[in-house]
Amino acid sequence: MTEKTRADGRAADDLRTVTIERGWSDQAEGSALVSFGKTKVLCTASFTNGVPRWLAGKGKGWVTAEYSMLPRSTNSRMDRESVKGKIGGRTHEISRLIGRSLRAVIDMKSLGENTIVIDCDVLQADGGTRTAAITGAYVALADAIEWARTKKYIGQKATPLIDSVSAVSVGIIDGEPMLDLAYVEDVRAETDMNVVVTGRGLFVEVQGTAEGAPFDRAELNALLDLALAGAVDLAEIQTTALTNADGSGPAIAGSTAVSYTGV
Amino acid sequence: MTEKTRADGRAADDLRTVTIERGWSDQAEGSALVSFGKTKVLCTASFTNGVPRWLAGKGKGWVTAEYSMLPRSTNSRMDRESVKGKIGGRTHEISRLIGRSLRAVIDMKSLGENTIVIDCDVLQADGGTRTAAITGAYVALADAIEWARTKKYIGQKATPLIDSVSAVSVGIIDGEPMLDLAYVEDVRAETDMNVVVTGRGLFVEVQGTAEGAPFDRAELNALLDLALAGAVDLAEIQTTALTNADGSGPAIAGSTAVSYTGV
Amino acid sequence: MTEKTRADGRAADDLRTVTIERGWSDQAEGSALVSFGKTKVLCTASFTNGVPRWLAGKGKGWVTAEYSMLPRSTNSRMDRESVKGKIGGRTHEISRLIGRSLRAVIDMKSLGENTIVIDCDVLQADGGTRTAAITGAYVALADAIEWARTKKYIGQKATPLIDSVSAVSVGIIDGEPMLDLAYVEDVRAETDMNVVVTGRGLFVEVQGTAEGAPFDRAELNALLDLALAGAVDLAEIQTTALTNADGSGPAIAGSTAVSYTGV
Amino acid sequence: MTEKTRADGRAADDLRTVTIERGWSDQAEGSALVSFGKTKVLCTASFTNGVPRWLAGKGKGWVTAEYSMLPRSTNSRMDRESVKGKIGGRTHEISRLIGRSLRAVIDMKSLGENTIVIDCDVLQADGGTRTAAITGAYVALADAIEWARTKKYIGQKATPLIDSVSAVSVGIIDGEPMLDLAYVEDVRAETDMNVVVTGRGLFVEVQGTAEGAPFDRAELNALLDLALAGAVDLAEIQTTALTNADGSGPAIAGSTAVSYTGV
Amino acid sequence: MTEKTRADGRAADDLRTVTIERGWSDQAEGSALVSFGKTKVLCTASFTNGVPRWLAGKGKGWVTAEYSMLPRSTNSRMDRESVKGKIGGRTHEISRLIGRSLRAVIDMKSLGENTIVIDCDVLQADGGTRTAAITGAYVALADAIEWARTKKYIGQKATPLIDSVSAVSVGIIDGEPMLDLAYVEDVRAETDMNVVVTGRGLFVEVQGTAEGAPFDRAELNALLDLALAGAVDLAEIQTTALTNADGSGPAIAGSTAVSYTGV
Amino acid sequence: MTEKTRADGRAADDLRTVTIERGWSDQAEGSALVSFGKTKVLCTASFTNGVPRWLAGKGKGWVTAEYSMLPRSTNSRMDRESVKGKIGGRTHEISRLIGRSLRAVIDMKSLGENTIVIDCDVLQADGGTRTAAITGAYVALADAIEWARTKKYIGQKATPLIDSVSAVSVGIIDGEPMLDLAYVEDVRAETDMNVVVTGRGLFVEVQGTAEGAPFDRAELNALLDLALAGAVDLAEIQTTALTNADGSGPAIAGSTAVSYTGV
Repeated sequence: MTEKTRADGRAADDLRTVTIERGWSDQAEGSALVSFGKTKVLCTASFTNGVPRWLAGKGKGWVTAEYSMLPRSTNSRMDRESVKGKIGGRTHEISRLIGRSLRAVIDMKSLGENTIVIDCDVLQADGGTRTAAITGAYVALADAIEWARTKKYIGQKATPLIDSVSAVSVGIIDGEPMLDLAYVEDVRAETDMNVVVTGRGLFVEVQGTAEGAPFDRAELNALLDLALAGAVDLAEIQTTALTNADGSGPAIAGSTAVSYTGV
Repeated sequence: MTEKTRADGRAADDLRTVTIERGWSDQAEGSALVSFGKTKVLCTASFTNGVPRWLAGKGKGWVTAEYSMLPRSTNSRMDRESVKGKIGGRTHEISRLIGRSLRAVIDMKSLGENTIVIDCDVLQADGGTRTAAITGAYVALADAIEWARTKKYIGQKATPLIDSVSAVSVGIIDGEPMLDLAYVEDVRAETDMNVVVTGRGLFVEVQGTAEGAPFDRAELNALLDLALAGAVDLAEIQTTALTNADGSGPAIAGSTAVSYTGV
Repeated sequence: MTEKTRADGRAADDLRTVTIERGWSDQAEGSALVSFGKTKVLCTASFTNGVPRWLAGKGKGWVTAEYSMLPRSTNSRMDRESVKGKIGGRTHEISRLIGRSLRAVIDMKSLGENTIVIDCDVLQADGGTRTAAITGAYVALADAIEWARTKKYIGQKATPLIDSVSAVSVGIIDGEPMLDLAYVEDVRAETDMNVVVTGRGLFVEVQGTAEGAPFDRAELNALLDLALAGAVDLAEIQTTALTNADGSGPAIAGSTAVSYTGV
Repeated sequence: MTEKTRADGRAADDLRTVTIERGWSDQAEGSALVSFGKTKVLCTASFTNGVPRWLAGKGKGWVTAEYSMLPRSTNSRMDRESVKGKIGGRTHEISRLIGRSLRAVIDMKSLGENTIVIDCDVLQADGGTRTAAITGAYVALADAIEWARTKKYIGQKATPLIDSVSAVSVGIIDGEPMLDLAYVEDVRAETDMNVVVTGRGLFVEVQGTAEGAPFDRAELNALLDLALAGAVDLAEIQTTALTNADGSGPAIAGSTAVSYTGV
Repeated sequence: MTEKTRADGRAADDLRTVTIERGWSDQAEGSALVSFGKTKVLCTASFTNGVPRWLAGKGKGWVTAEYSMLPRSTNSRMDRESVKGKIGGRTHEISRLIGRSLRAVIDMKSLGENTIVIDCDVLQADGGTRTAAITGAYVALADAIEWARTKKYIGQKATPLIDSVSAVSVGIIDGEPMLDLAYVEDVRAETDMNVVVTGRGLFVEVQGTAEGAPFDRAELNALLDLALAGAVDLAEIQTTALTNADGSGPAIAGSTAVSYTGV
Repeated sequence: MTEKTRADGRAADDLRTVTIERGWSDQAEGSALVSFGKTKVLCTASFTNGVPRWLAGKGKGWVTAEYSMLPRSTNSRMDRESVKGKIGGRTHEISRLIGRSLRAVIDMKSLGENTIVIDCDVLQADGGTRTAAITGAYVALADAIEWARTKKYIGQKATPLIDSVSAVSVGIIDGEPMLDLAYVEDVRAETDMNVVVTGRGLFVEVQGTAEGAPFDRAELNALLDLALAGAVDLAEIQTTALTNADGSGPAIAGSTAVSYTGV
C-alpha cells in the first residue's frame, strides 16, 4: 500500500508477527498466550455454572472480562492497582471493551445459565495490548465453550459462538495511516483508533481518538479500510490456532463448514 | 430525512430541545447548565494557576474533567460512588472522554501554566448525558478562559481556544439511524455511537458500539452523516449562548471574526 | 430586634430570601430545589418498598439521608469524595443530622415496611447548607409520602408525618446574636448553632459550638430565641410550597386541618 | 434533686463513680485511663514539634483527636473499622467533637508550632464514652503540655491552657432529666444531650438530640442545669488527678493560683 | 545458662515478669490483660453461634484472631490503620499467626458450629507483642469455651481444647541466644525467632528470620532449646491464671487431671 | 532416602523439575521465568536510582518485593486484589518474605543509593509459589545488579551480592518428610515448612507451621535436613542459569572464583 517502511521494516499495512499459543494454561478451561510483536498477553477463560444474581432465572449466560498489566510489563515500572487500592480509568475502560467485544459474538441464550470470565494479563507491553487481548481472548473463549460442551454443561448442538472476533489498532503518523502500531508509533500518532471486527467483517467497536489534531472524514475512511484488511489476517491466524489435529474447530452458528473455513 | 416520527414526535434527524444556561454558578470561573430534553447537566470550569507536578516547567497548561451523576438523577436511585468508596468504570470512561474532547480544542502553550478542571454533574438523566456534558463544558471552558484573560492570568492576545467542540449520540433503532437518543431509545438501540465534533466539522472522537448485532460499513456511514449534521446545530446553540450583549464572543485561534460567526 | 444591619442589609433576626422549588425533579418521588440566599440544595426523596435487613419484619419503615457538595459548589474547588475514596467526617455528620431530623417527624409504623432515602446535593454553597437541606428535604419527603399514598404503598388514611420540620443557623458575631448566617458571617462567628425545630415549635436538635470563646447561658438563650422565631417563618414557607392548587397539603397526624393551616 | 433512684442506685443528679488513672502509659507524653462507671477509655496525648502543612509558619500550634472503640468493648463484637477499610460516621463525629472541645481551652499562639494528637480508645463501653473521653483527654493534654515545658519545647512561662474542660451526658428518661447515662439508660432516653463545659462554667458544645419525641424549652433548660452541676464535680476530679505530690498542678492562663484551686 | 546479664538485669534464659489478669473485660465471654514486662495486650474472646458461610453445615467450629496496636502503644505515634483505610502486612501476618496458633489446640468438631473471635489489642508495646498476644489469647479462649459449656452452647463433656498453647521470642544478640526480647534487644538482634509451643511441648509454629547475618544449624538449635524452656514457664503461668478458687481449670482432651496439673 | 514414591513418581527427597528462563522480559533490568513443576512464576527486577525517603542520605540501597497471583493461576478463579481494593494477608506475608530473603544476601552499602523492586507474578500455581518466587527472584536480582554495573550506576568493583539465596518447601505427609510439595501434597501435609537458604548453606528464614497436629523436635530436624539438601540443588540450578556463554557469572562478595563455581 505504501512505499515507506517503518522502524521495524514493516509496510504501513502490515501486522506485526502475531502468534497464538493456544492452551498455555494447565488450569483454565480455555487459554491463549498471544503475541503482537513484543506485546504478550496471557488470556484465560474461566467457565462456571450459574450467572450473576441480576441475570438469574432468565435462561441466559454471561461473559465478562478483566484486563490488567503486570507492573513491569512496561518500560518503567508502574505501581500495582492492588497496592494503590483502586483500579484506574484506563484499566476499567479496556476491561469493559474486551467484555463487550466478546459478548457481541456470543448468543447468551445458547450459552445457558453459565458464566465465562476472561482474564487478560499483559506480561509485556509494546503497544496494542487491548487489541492483542481481544484477539487472544476469543481463542480462550472458544476453547472454554468447547470444554463446556465436552462436560455437557451446554447442549451438544448449542452454538453460543455466532461469529469470531479480533481487534487491531490503526493510526495516522506523519499524515500516513498505519496498521497495528507498536509503542514508539503509538506515542507519535495524531489519531489512534481501535477497531473490533468479527470474522464476517462487521464492526463491533470503532473507537477513534484525536490525540493531536482532529481528523476529517477521509482520514477516518482510510483508517477503517486498513483495519478491516488487518482483521481478515487476524481471523485467519485465530482459525489456524483453533484448528485441531483432525482439522476440526469450534462450531460457529450459521457457519456451513465445521471448521473455520467459512469464517 | 425520514417520515417516521419518534416517541416524542421528533424526526430521526432532530435534536431534542437543547438549552444552555450560561453562567449558572456564582462560584465558578465558567459555568453552564445544559439541557438536552430532560437530561440536565451542571458544568463548571475551575481555573487555577499552576499545573500538576508531572507537567511543571514545560510552559504548558492542563485541562481535565470529572463526570458524576447525582444518585437520583436516574429513574431508580443509584448508590453514590463516594459511599461505595470507588469510582465505576463508566464514570471513569466518561470523565476521560470529556477531558480528551476539550483538550482537543485547546492550545496548551497558549494557556500557559494554568489548570482548568471541568466538573460535569448530571442533575437529571434521560440519555445523552455525556454528549450534553461535553457540549455544556465547552461553554464553561470558554468563559473560564475569558475570565482568566480579564484577570491577566493569560495574555490579552492569547487564544488557547483553537476551535469549539460539541458532542451528540446517534444510534440505529429498528434498523433506522437516529440522532440524539433519549433514554427509552438508547436502551433499544442495536448500535450506539457518540461522536465528538469541532466547530470546524472535524472529528475528535468516534465511539461506536454494537449493543446488539454488529454493524456494517454502510450503517456506520449513515450514523456519521447524522452526527455531523447534529453537530452543526449544536455549535450554533453554543455560539448563541456565548454571545455577549455587545455581540462579542470568545476568541478562537484562526477565526477571522471576533464573534462566533465564523465557527 | 437590632438596629445594625448586615453586609447584605438584613436585620439580625432576618432570614435570607428562602425559596423552595417543589417538584424540581422528573425522576424522584418527591423533590425540592431549596435556596437560602445563594445557597442552593437539590433535595430528592426516593421511595422504595421494603426496609434494610436489620429492620425487616417489624412492620416499620425507614428514612435515611445522604448529603454531599458538588466540587465547585464552593468558592475554591474541593476534591470529590468519590475520588478520594472516602467520605469525610463533616459529610457523615451532616448526613446523619438530616436523617435524624426527618425521622423525628415520621411515625415509622404508619409508614409501613417502606424506605425513603433523602439525597441533599449542594449545588451552590454560601453558608447554611445543612439547614437549607433539612428545610428542603422535608418538602421532598412530604411529597414522596403523598406519592406513596396515591400508589397505595401506604394506607389511604395513614399519616406517617406527625409534624413538619425545618432548620436554621444562628450565631454570635461581634457579640451580637444573628439568624441564618451567610458564609462570610459563618467564618467570623464566635459561636455557631444549628437548631432543628418542628412546625409545632419543639426542638429536634440543638447543636451549639464555641468556635472562638466559650459561651454562657445568657448567650445560649438569646440564640435559641432567634432560632425559634426563624423556624416559624420557615414552617410557613414550607406550608406554602406544599399547598396544592386546590388548597390541600400533606396530611399531618393530629393536625385538625387538612391543609397546613394548623401547622 | 429527685427521690427516684436508678438501676444502679444513683439519684438523677449523680455521676457514676469517676476515676482517672493519670500517667497510665509509659510511652505517651501525657495519658489517663478514665472510668465513668464501667466505661473505660485510654487517653494518650502525643506531643510533636511542628504543625500540619496548612498551618505552618503562622506561629500557632494544633491539637487534634482520634476516637475509636475496641471491637469487643461493647456487648456484642463490632467489626474493626480498619478491617472495613473506612471510618464510620459516628467515629468521625466523636473524634471531631473531642478535638473541638480541647482546642476551646488552648491558646494556640502560646503552644507555638507544636502538635498534640489525642487518642481516645474505648477499652470498655457502657454509655458516655465520648464524655469520658473528653474528660480524660484533658488530663492527658495537660500533662503533655507540662512535659513540653520541661523539655523546653514551649516557653517556661507559656500558658497554652486557658481553662479546663470536661463533658457529661444528660437525658430525659420516662419524663425525668438524668445525669451521666449508663448504656441501659441511654437506649431508653427520649432526649440525649452531651454538654462540654469549661472549668469556669462556660459552654463549649451543647448537642441535644430528640431520640424519641421532640423536646420543649423547659426540658432543655432542666438538662442544661443538670449538666452544669455535673461539670463542677468533673472539674474537681480532674483537678485532684492533676495535683502533684507537692500540691502543684498545670498552669492555666488567668488563674491566680498555681494549683487548680482557682479553677 | 549465661553469666552476662541484660539491660534489665535478666539472665539470657529469663522471661520478663509475666502477668495475666484473667477476666479483665465485663463484656467478653473470655478475656485476659497479659503483660510481658512493659508489653501489655488486652485479649478478648467473643463466642457466637454459627460459623462463616464457607464452613456451614460441616459440624465444625471456627476460631480466628485479629491483632492491632493502639496508635500510641509505641514510642512514637503510628497512624491508625482505620485512618489509612487499609491493614498493613505486619498486622495481617500477626493476626494470621495468632489464629493458626490457637486453632492448633482446638478440636473443631468438638467445638460444634460455633465461632470464637479473638481480639488482641496492644495497649503498650515493648517487644514481644505477638508472643504475649498468643499467650494471653489462650486464657481468653479457654474461658470462652467454659462460658459456652455453662450456657450449653457446647456439650457438657465436649473438650474442644486439646492442649494449651503459648509463645515466646528468642534471638541472637552479640552472638548470644536470649529469651523473650524487649524492644531494645529486638532491634539489635541478628536473628529473631518466634516459637509457638503447646503445653505438651510440641511445636505449632517456628518462625526464624535472619535480621542481620544468616544463621547456622547450631544457632538454630540453641534458640529452639531456649524457647522450649521458656514455654514451660509460660504454660505454668497460664495454668495458674486459669485455676479457679476451687482448684479446677479448663478441661483439656486427653488430660487425665481435671485441673491444669497435667499440662 | 525413602522407598515410597509420590503421585508424580518422585522420591521423598526429590525436587520437581526446576527450570529458570533467565532474561524472559525485554523490559526489566533483570528477569527470570522460573518453574517448579507446573508452578510458573515470572520474576522481574526493576532498578531505579534513588531510595525511599526514609532511607535517603544514608548511602545505602534498598531491595523490596511484591508477590501476586494471576486470578486464574489456580484451579478455580480467585478475585483480583485490585478489584477487591485491598491486598490479602497471605499476599502481604509472601511479599515481605521475598523481600527479607533477598535483602539477606545484599550489602546495601555496596548497592549505593539505588532501589531494586522485585515483582513475582504467579502465572500458574501448583504449590511452592513462594519458594519458586524467591529462587527465581535471585536470578533477576543478580542480573539487575550486573546491568547497573554495566550502566555504571554502581561501582565496577562493588559486590552488592554477598551470597546467593533459594527457597524450598518441606512437609510431613502421612508421617513422612518430603521435599518440594506440589499442591495435592501441600493440602494433605500435617506440617508445612518453607526454608530459605543461602548458597553457603546458612538459614535466612525458617517458617514451620503445624497445619494438622503439632510437631516434635525430631520431625523438625528431619525437615531441616531435607530442605538443606534441596537448597544445594537449587543453588546449582541458579548458578547454571546465571552462567554466561563465556563461563562468567555474577560477582559475589568473598567468593574466590569469578564464576558461580565457588558458591
